[in-house]
Amino acid sequence: MSKSVLELTPVETVACCSPLARQPLSPEQAVPIASLLKALADPVLLRLLSLVASHADGEACVCDLNDAFDLSQPTISHHLKVLHEAGLLDRTKRGVWVYYAVRRVALADLADLLGGTTR
Amino acid sequence: MSKSVLELTPVETVACCSPLARQPLSPEQAVPIASLLKALADPVLLRLLSLVASHADGEACVCDLNDAFDLSQPTISHHLKVLHEAGLLDRTKRGVWVYYAVRRVALADLADLLGGTTR
Repeated sequence: MSKSVLELTPVETVACCSPLARQPLSPEQAVPIASLLKALADPVLLRLLSLVASHADGEACVCDLNDAFDLSQPTISHHLKVLHEAGLLDRTKRGVWVYYAVRRVALADLADLLGGTTR
Repeated sequence: MSKSVLELTPVETVACCSPLARQPLSPEQAVPIASLLKALADPVLLRLLSLVASHADGEACVCDLNDAFDLSQPTISHHLKVLHEAGLLDRTKRGVWVYYAVRRVALADLADLLGGTTR
Protein backbone atom coordinates (compact mmCIF):
# COMPACT_ATOMS: atom_id res chain seq x y z
CA MET A 1 0.00 0.00 0.00
CA SER A 2 1.38 3.45 -0.80
CA LYS A 3 2.00 5.85 2.07
CA SER A 4 -0.40 8.72 2.71
CA VAL A 5 1.11 12.19 2.43
CA LEU A 6 1.09 12.43 6.23
CA GLU A 7 3.54 9.51 6.52
CA LEU A 8 6.07 10.79 3.99
CA THR A 9 9.38 12.42 4.89
CA PRO A 10 9.93 15.96 3.49
CA VAL A 11 12.16 14.57 0.74
CA GLU A 12 9.57 11.92 -0.20
CA THR A 13 6.86 14.61 -0.26
CA VAL A 14 8.94 16.73 -2.65
CA ALA A 15 9.41 13.70 -4.93
CA CYS A 16 5.65 13.04 -5.00
CA CYS A 17 4.39 16.58 -5.64
CA SER A 18 3.61 18.06 -9.02
CA PRO A 19 5.64 21.20 -9.80
CA LEU A 20 4.13 24.09 -7.86
CA ALA A 21 3.29 25.94 -11.07
CA ARG A 22 1.23 22.98 -12.32
CA GLN A 23 -1.03 22.35 -9.34
CA PRO A 24 -1.58 24.25 -6.07
CA LEU A 25 0.18 22.62 -3.12
CA SER A 26 -2.13 21.26 -0.42
CA PRO A 27 -1.56 22.26 3.22
CA GLU A 28 -0.41 18.68 3.93
CA GLN A 29 2.21 18.92 1.18
CA ALA A 30 3.29 22.48 2.02
CA VAL A 31 4.28 21.79 5.65
CA PRO A 32 7.03 19.19 5.04
CA ILE A 33 8.30 21.02 1.94
CA ALA A 34 8.58 24.26 3.91
CA SER A 35 10.55 22.41 6.59
CA LEU A 36 12.96 21.10 3.94
CA LEU A 37 13.41 24.61 2.51
CA LYS A 38 13.99 25.91 6.04
CA ALA A 39 17.07 23.69 6.32
CA LEU A 40 18.40 25.48 3.22
CA ALA A 41 17.34 28.98 4.28
CA ASP A 42 20.50 29.57 6.28
CA PRO A 43 23.75 30.85 4.75
CA VAL A 44 26.04 28.43 6.61
CA LEU A 45 23.92 25.35 5.90
CA LEU A 46 23.63 26.36 2.27
CA ARG A 47 27.42 26.78 1.97
CA LEU A 48 28.01 23.44 3.74
CA LEU A 49 25.65 21.67 1.35
CA SER A 50 27.30 23.34 -1.63
CA LEU A 51 30.78 22.44 -0.34
CA VAL A 52 29.84 18.75 -0.02
CA ALA A 53 27.92 18.71 -3.33
CA SER A 54 30.77 20.29 -5.31
CA HIS A 55 33.42 17.96 -3.82
CA ALA A 56 34.68 15.06 -5.94
CA ASP A 57 31.83 12.54 -6.31
CA GLY A 58 29.59 14.79 -4.16
CA GLU A 59 31.16 13.39 -1.00
CA ALA A 60 33.37 15.04 1.62
CA CYS A 61 35.00 14.06 4.89
CA VAL A 62 33.99 16.19 7.85
CA CYS A 63 37.76 16.80 8.22
CA ASP A 64 37.71 18.61 4.83
CA LEU A 65 34.84 20.90 5.81
CA ASN A 66 36.06 22.40 9.07
CA ASP A 67 38.69 24.63 7.45
CA ALA A 68 36.18 26.45 5.25
CA PHE A 69 34.29 27.98 8.19
CA ASP A 70 35.20 30.11 11.13
CA LEU A 71 33.12 27.84 13.35
CA SER A 72 33.90 25.16 15.92
CA GLN A 73 33.93 21.53 14.83
CA PRO A 74 30.89 20.66 17.03
CA THR A 75 28.93 23.52 15.42
CA ILE A 76 29.75 22.25 11.94
CA SER A 77 28.83 18.71 12.98
CA HIS A 78 25.49 20.02 14.27
CA HIS A 79 24.76 21.79 10.96
CA LEU A 80 25.69 18.64 9.01
CA LYS A 81 23.30 16.66 11.22
CA VAL A 82 20.47 19.10 10.36
CA LEU A 83 21.14 18.58 6.63
CA HIS A 84 21.33 14.81 7.16
CA GLU A 85 18.06 14.73 9.11
CA ALA A 86 16.39 16.87 6.43
CA GLY A 87 17.29 14.13 3.93
CA LEU A 88 19.72 16.26 1.91
CA LEU A 89 22.94 14.49 2.96
CA ASP A 90 23.78 10.82 3.53
CA ARG A 91 26.49 9.95 6.00
CA THR A 92 28.81 7.00 6.55
CA LYS A 93 31.63 6.35 8.98
CA ARG A 94 34.90 5.03 7.60
CA GLY A 95 37.74 4.59 10.06
CA VAL A 96 37.81 7.56 12.42
CA TRP A 97 36.07 9.97 10.04
CA VAL A 98 32.48 10.63 9.06
CA TYR A 99 31.82 11.22 5.35
CA TYR A 100 28.87 13.17 3.98
CA ALA A 101 27.45 12.71 0.49
CA VAL A 102 24.85 14.92 -1.17
CA ARG A 103 21.56 13.24 -2.08
CA ARG A 104 21.45 14.44 -5.68
CA VAL A 105 18.01 12.98 -6.26
CA ALA A 106 16.58 15.04 -3.39
CA LEU A 107 18.05 18.26 -4.86
CA ALA A 108 16.86 17.33 -8.37
CA ASP A 109 13.33 16.66 -7.05
CA LEU A 110 13.32 19.99 -5.21
CA ALA A 111 14.47 21.73 -8.41
CA ASP A 112 11.64 20.06 -10.35
CA LEU A 113 9.12 21.11 -7.73
CA LEU A 114 10.21 24.77 -7.89
CA GLY A 115 11.09 25.14 -11.55
CA GLY A 116 9.17 22.40 -13.33
CA THR A 117 6.97 23.57 -16.23
CA THR A 118 8.34 27.09 -15.86
CA ARG A 119 10.46 27.05 -19.02
CA MET B 1 30.02 48.16 -15.39
CA SER B 2 28.58 44.97 -13.95
CA LYS B 3 27.29 45.04 -10.38
CA SER B 4 29.36 43.44 -7.60
CA VAL B 5 27.67 40.57 -5.78
CA LEU B 6 27.02 42.90 -2.83
CA GLU B 7 24.76 45.11 -4.97
CA LEU B 8 22.61 42.31 -6.40
CA THR B 9 19.10 41.46 -5.22
CA PRO B 10 18.57 37.87 -4.00
CA VAL B 11 16.93 36.94 -7.32
CA GLU B 12 19.81 38.48 -9.31
CA THR B 13 22.33 36.59 -7.12
CA VAL B 14 20.54 33.30 -7.82
CA ALA B 15 20.66 34.03 -11.56
CA CYS B 16 24.42 34.71 -11.41
CA CYS B 17 25.53 31.71 -9.33
CA SER B 18 26.79 28.43 -10.66
CA PRO B 19 24.73 25.44 -9.52
CA LEU B 20 25.67 24.66 -5.93
CA ALA B 21 26.94 21.20 -6.91
CA ARG B 22 29.36 22.73 -9.44
CA GLN B 23 31.12 25.32 -7.29
CA PRO B 24 30.97 26.09 -3.54
CA LEU B 25 28.84 29.14 -2.76
CA SER B 26 30.73 32.08 -1.30
CA PRO B 27 29.49 33.70 1.93
CA GLU B 28 28.48 36.78 -0.12
CA GLN B 29 26.35 34.61 -2.41
CA ALA B 30 24.90 32.43 0.36
CA VAL B 31 23.37 35.29 2.39
CA PRO B 32 20.93 36.65 -0.25
CA ILE B 33 20.09 33.15 -1.53
CA ALA B 34 19.26 32.01 2.00
CA SER B 35 17.00 35.04 2.41
CA LEU B 36 15.17 34.12 -0.81
CA LEU B 37 14.73 30.52 0.39
CA LYS B 38 13.47 31.85 3.71
CA ALA B 39 10.54 33.49 1.93
CA LEU B 40 9.63 30.02 0.63
CA ALA B 41 10.27 28.16 3.89
CA ASP B 42 6.79 28.84 5.21
CA PRO B 43 3.77 26.64 4.37
CA VAL B 44 1.35 29.53 3.75
CA LEU B 45 3.77 31.50 1.56
CA LEU B 46 4.61 28.36 -0.38
CA ARG B 47 0.92 27.62 -0.98
CA LEU B 48 0.25 31.22 -1.98
CA LEU B 49 3.10 31.14 -4.50
CA SER B 50 1.88 27.80 -5.85
CA LEU B 51 -1.69 29.11 -6.11
CA VAL B 52 -0.59 32.13 -8.14
CA ALA B 53 1.87 30.10 -10.26
CA SER B 54 -0.69 27.44 -11.16
CA HIS B 55 -3.40 29.98 -12.05
CA ALA B 56 -4.08 30.66 -15.74
CA ASP B 57 -1.05 32.50 -17.17
CA GLY B 58 0.62 32.38 -13.74
CA GLU B 59 -1.37 35.42 -12.62
CA ALA B 60 -4.10 35.78 -10.00
CA CYS B 61 -6.22 38.56 -8.55
CA VAL B 62 -5.87 38.99 -4.81
CA CYS B 63 -9.66 38.53 -4.78
CA ASP B 64 -9.16 34.94 -6.04
CA LEU B 65 -6.65 34.06 -3.32
CA ASN B 66 -8.51 35.03 -0.16
CA ASP B 67 -10.97 32.10 -0.31
CA ALA B 68 -8.24 29.45 -0.30
CA PHE B 69 -6.99 30.37 3.18
CA ASP B 70 -8.51 30.68 6.59
CA LEU B 71 -6.70 33.97 7.06
CA SER B 72 -7.73 37.62 7.05
CA GLN B 73 -7.34 39.60 3.84
CA PRO B 74 -4.69 41.91 5.39
CA THR B 75 -2.66 38.83 6.45
CA ILE B 76 -2.80 37.43 2.94
CA SER B 77 -1.83 40.81 1.50
CA HIS B 78 1.13 40.92 3.88
CA HIS B 79 2.31 37.46 2.75
CA LEU B 80 1.95 38.46 -0.90
CA LYS B 81 4.02 41.57 -0.19
CA VAL B 82 6.81 39.36 1.28
CA LEU B 83 6.83 37.22 -1.90
CA HIS B 84 6.80 40.39 -4.04
CA GLU B 85 9.67 41.96 -2.10
CA ALA B 86 11.64 38.69 -2.37
CA GLY B 87 11.36 39.03 -6.15
CA LEU B 88 9.18 35.95 -6.65
CA LEU B 89 5.95 37.76 -7.60
CA ASP B 90 5.26 40.81 -9.74
CA ARG B 91 2.22 42.93 -8.99
CA THR B 92 0.05 45.31 -10.95
CA LYS B 93 -3.08 47.25 -10.08
CA ARG B 94 -5.97 47.09 -12.53
CA GLY B 95 -9.18 48.84 -11.51
CA VAL B 96 -9.84 48.20 -7.84
CA TRP B 97 -7.88 44.92 -7.66
CA VAL B 98 -4.22 44.04 -7.34
CA TYR B 99 -2.98 41.18 -9.54
CA TYR B 100 0.05 39.02 -8.73
CA ALA B 101 2.07 37.16 -11.35
CA VAL B 102 4.75 34.58 -10.65
CA ARG B 103 8.27 35.44 -11.86
CA ARG B 104 8.91 32.19 -13.69
CA VAL B 105 12.50 33.14 -14.47
CA ALA B 106 13.27 33.56 -10.77
CA LEU B 107 11.88 30.10 -9.99
CA ALA B 108 13.71 28.54 -12.95
CA ASP B 109 16.99 30.16 -11.83
CA LEU B 110 16.47 28.88 -8.29
CA ALA B 111 15.77 25.39 -9.68
CA ASP B 112 18.99 25.54 -11.72
CA LEU B 113 20.96 26.63 -8.66
CA LEU B 114 19.68 23.73 -6.57
CA GLY B 115 19.41 20.98 -9.15
CA GLY B 116 21.79 21.99 -11.93
CA THR B 117 24.37 19.34 -12.92
CA THR B 118 22.75 16.87 -10.53
CA ARG B 119 21.22 14.65 -13.19
